[in-house]
Amino acid sequence: MSDIRTAAVIGAGVIGAGWAARFVLNGIDVIVHDPHPEAERRTRDVLANAERSHARLTMAPSGRQGTLRFAPSIAEAVAQADFVQESAPEREDVKKALLAEIDARARPDVLVCSSTSGLLPNRLQMDMKYPDRFLVGHPFNPVYLLPLVELCGGKRTAADAITRAREFYNGIGMRPLVVRKEIDGFIADRLLEALWREALWLVHDDIATVEEIDDAIRFGAGLRWAFMGTFQLYRLAGGEDGMRHFMAQFGPALQLPWSKLTDVPELTDAFIDKIARQSDAQAGGAPLRDAERKRDDCLVAIMQALKAQDYAAGAVLAGYEEKLFAAAHEDAGAERETDPTQPLQLHTGRVLPEWVDYNNHMTESRYLQIFGDSSDALFHSIGIDGDYHASGFSYYTVETHIVHRREIAGLEPFYTTTQILDADPKRLHVFHRLHHGRSHDLLASAEQMLLHVDTRQSRACPARADIHERVIALRDAHVHLERPEQAGRHVGVMTAPEIAAP
Amino acid sequence: MSDIRTAAVIGAGVIGAGWAARFVLNGIDVIVHDPHPEAERRTRDVLANAERSHARLTMAPSGRQGTLRFAPSIAEAVAQADFVQESAPEREDVKKALLAEIDARARPDVLVCSSTSGLLPNRLQMDMKYPDRFLVGHPFNPVYLLPLVELCGGKRTAADAITRAREFYNGIGMRPLVVRKEIDGFIADRLLEALWREALWLVHDDIATVEEIDDAIRFGAGLRWAFMGTFQLYRLAGGEDGMRHFMAQFGPALQLPWSKLTDVPELTDAFIDKIARQSDAQAGGAPLRDAERKRDDCLVAIMQALKAQDYAAGAVLAGYEEKLFAAAHEDAGAERETDPTQPLQLHTGRVLPEWVDYNNHMTESRYLQIFGDSSDALFHSIGIDGDYHASGFSYYTVETHIVHRREIAGLEPFYTTTQILDADPKRLHVFHRLHHGRSHDLLASAEQMLLHVDTRQSRACPARADIHERVIALRDAHVHLERPEQAGRHVGVMTAPEIAAP
Repeated sequence: MSDIRTAAVIGAGVIGAGWAARFVLNGIDVIVHDPHPEAERRTRDVLANAERSHARLTMAPSGRQGTLRFAPSIAEAVAQADFVQESAPEREDVKKALLAEIDARARPDVLVCSSTSGLLPNRLQMDMKYPDRFLVGHPFNPVYLLPLVELCGGKRTAADAITRAREFYNGIGMRPLVVRKEIDGFIADRLLEALWREALWLVHDDIATVEEIDDAIRFGAGLRWAFMGTFQLYRLAGGEDGMRHFMAQFGPALQLPWSKLTDVPELTDAFIDKIARQSDAQAGGAPLRDAERKRDDCLVAIMQALKAQDYAAGAVLAGYEEKLFAAAHEDAGAERETDPTQPLQLHTGRVLPEWVDYNNHMTESRYLQIFGDSSDALFHSIGIDGDYHASGFSYYTVETHIVHRREIAGLEPFYTTTQILDADPKRLHVFHRLHHGRSHDLLASAEQMLLHVDTRQSRACPARADIHERVIALRDAHVHLERPEQAGRHVGVMTAPEIAAP
Repeated sequence: MSDIRTAAVIGAGVIGAGWAARFVLNGIDVIVHDPHPEAERRTRDVLANAERSHARLTMAPSGRQGTLRFAPSIAEAVAQADFVQESAPEREDVKKALLAEIDARARPDVLVCSSTSGLLPNRLQMDMKYPDRFLVGHPFNPVYLLPLVELCGGKRTAADAITRAREFYNGIGMRPLVVRKEIDGFIADRLLEALWREALWLVHDDIATVEEIDDAIRFGAGLRWAFMGTFQLYRLAGGEDGMRHFMAQFGPALQLPWSKLTDVPELTDAFIDKIARQSDAQAGGAPLRDAERKRDDCLVAIMQALKAQDYAAGAVLAGYEEKLFAAAHEDAGAERETDPTQPLQLHTGRVLPEWVDYNNHMTESRYLQIFGDSSDALFHSIGIDGDYHASGFSYYTVETHIVHRREIAGLEPFYTTTQILDADPKRLHVFHRLHHGRSHDLLASAEQMLLHVDTRQSRACPARADIHERVIALRDAHVHLERPEQAGRHVGVMTAPEIAAP
């Protein structure tokens, strides 16, 4: 996916640790440097949360994880690195000093990106010997989940460095946004700051509490911002007359005293106390990790929901998964040599968190879903595709007999095998077995009768000749296989005296 | 749910039409007044979008829809109304005149709410004879989906009016937020304005295009704002040291020139043209309705995703559905007198959009899901609840034989019947039938063998005495019923020569 095998993460606060986690989850070896005594423990905590979320975010094969090491000095951290991400505190002097040190120790061809939220790259690169390889790569928390990363170079940044950074970040599932003009706060944080500044005034002036302010966003406009920006939304708010109408309607309100000037409430101890107090009340004593998990679970749920819409962050996720599947396919392609005389192995996967019940056992309908996916994989393998369906033909399941043997828990891996019991021009009689991906235990089986149907007439009809030939070839290859004991039985015969849980 | 049967909607632009749709979908008869010649057509377009989204948003029984009528004058619109929602253009003089007229014509006990985005209720109620019943009820677009509504009264608004408005809005699935101190722009729009103002400057100064600005939100912070506000999020960004650390870290940046002063770029024709041009380019010629549907589909997907998290807007939706189910249960309760000697009717529903395939046919695994839900309903009816499961006992499905007869399409209604074929202390042998909700056609059947299990030991064991007694009573009540032809057969016997589609 990229020639970057090892990345150095300098500074492992919330952002740096988030970068380390995203890199590791994408197969990149990470070397962290952070003088904080708790840095390693905190980074591993963040990685644990990230692994948990990543497992839920995508079922795509993510390949090997990268390693995570900690180096006592910048020199040791960057010596072997193919990429450096700096995430030090938001102070220009601090960052300049660190970047100069990184610049002196890292290979000159290595990209050095700063996570700064808004300091100017032009100033940050001032003391660097190789400023051309430096740019801002500004992420958003949690870095291991949110796709956005703002890229911004300074006067002395090479155009090629921005191109390389864009490709790298894109390869690890992110959505780079190139900030074309250097400006304090770039784009996103200028917008966030403007909103937050107003929020601080509302708290300062006792108009509203932090909780009321948060509710004013998350139950309203915030739901929209998850997939459309302000301009897209206001265009729609303009109705059929669009943006011009909206500007005519609400433009004047911009002149109303609807927000404070950008002078900021003085951050006195009393004011900080007030915010912290209200924030504590809002959090209701929930531990940080719990709140983080809730946040991450919501983000995962939202990104998966948007994936089904193939829109916004969901489209980014879909594209990322395609890459992962393609990569895994290449890897697998080579050694996968299948024996046609054995049951077909056409479907593998992992039990999604939303597939399990209160017991963390996969719910029964998911067994049939997996068997149905196995039948689809079989159809695909014999040339039944979208065109075939579009031409008005399909196999329908008319009967299914499922026998359960063992439970399987959430996130566990599985695979199925498919045996052709019999076939004729109209009927396809198959037997699927569901196995645990590691223990290979038989979890359940499904005997299915599939009928080839003219979907327009809703009548059984013979399969197309080429499809039928492939079906018969499979049947003949399997004819020597032993008939499964669960096949051809009616309910009751197979009922197990006991049933085993994972 | 409320004593409000008829609502008047004065002004049917995007917001007014959205109110009309939300009211109608919640069983409230609506009378609209809007002088615009296109008002009726536009309102019905919005209602069509709203119906489409509502059907996907919740499967809860929503009862009868309200009616939608149009009145040529304010007087006729408000004469019969139990509630009035004013959504005229954002001009104080216009709204004051309309509200005075509404006030003069509506029953004095009727609540009059204004959708103003930020005009002061204290001023809007100035010319009213009954100002005590007036308050701001400020919604967000699309009104028929977003839960937030800001409530703000003026000096002469009765506290009771705010309480009644809160209950009313809550009853139609919204999340009221009472703005305790009257202030221009209330809470939400002050925050939105601050962000938008900065966005306008970025476009004005050619730092970024409207598309880049929107992307800077929707791929990053916007994803978080769908469920957590700025303060909740920054608390997490502060890591283990929380809000104080965050303030120390990023507070100083507030002093940096990260956003323009609140003076607004002059809205010259040239500037408006520029925004409209960029907005057109961003929209890429997609028709308004398509863009609206994409927005609504994303909102529905996000709210359903958050419902699974029982968090933020998802918790609001869950609470709303509970009310709808409870209401439907009461209605049903009366006439539902079930004959114990007949198969039980325990489960009804509608085919969710995400349950169908490319053909708009329900996918096969959903049949088993519906049969599984029917078994769960059966368990519930015989006293198997969370406590029983927690005590370590449960029925597991060990075998299922499904026979398909007909297809069912998305959003179609269905119900199941459940017949007890046999039972002993450990085993429960049931037969479910799935019928279409209107035609009553048999769509599929499932014969299931359920085993009572000690979930800790993962072994079959006898059901608790009281549960067993109820099971036996059901079995005995059904013993006279004819044995279904599909029961006791093995796969192949039942295969239909043809299969019918909806």
